[in-house]
Amino acid sequence: MPKFMDVHHGMTGLSPDDIKAAHQADLAIQSEEGVTFEHAWADTDSGDVFCLSDAPSAGAVQRIHERAGHRADEIHPLSVSL
Amino acid sequence: MPKFMDVHHGMTGLSPDDIKAAHQADLAIQSEEGVTFEHAWADTDSGDVFCLSDAPSAGAVQRIHERAGHRADEIHPLSVSL
Repeated sequence: MPKFMDVHHGMTGLSPDDIKAAHQADLAIQSEEGVTFEHAWADTDSGDVFCLSDAPSAGAVQRIHERAGHRADEIHPLSVSL
Repeated sequence: MPKFMDVHHGMTGLSPDDIKAAHQADLAIQSEEGVTFEHAWADTDSGDVFCLSDAPSAGAVQRIHERAGHRADEIHPLSVSL
């Protein structure tokens, strides 16, 4: 299964608990698109959030994020994972 | 120990083996700044590279990357790691 790193910019004004809730919203529906979010990391000062996933396609990742209410700004297929 | 996600842009024209060699160059000297790079991921088409580390500071991460020949464009302290 391909891996993806997606990036959200501008998620400022959110607490760590808000980020956890947003990630939980992804996890709750991820199986409907065959996506597995492995990790999420946030810099709550800059508002940048990074999500690592195994997914059938970038589109599948975006559909989950959109339905959860936070569209990704970048979705990178990972040709290298070390 | 704080965690950081750093991002390199514009690392285009590199093969997966080139990325592995660049990461190895970081690993070879990381202990001199107390940094532990946990993972590195690359989108070799867009030239974006992401590195996850435990480190005493963003400056320590950058010093390792600079000495290894690939300065990071962004270094994000991670207030959330899920």
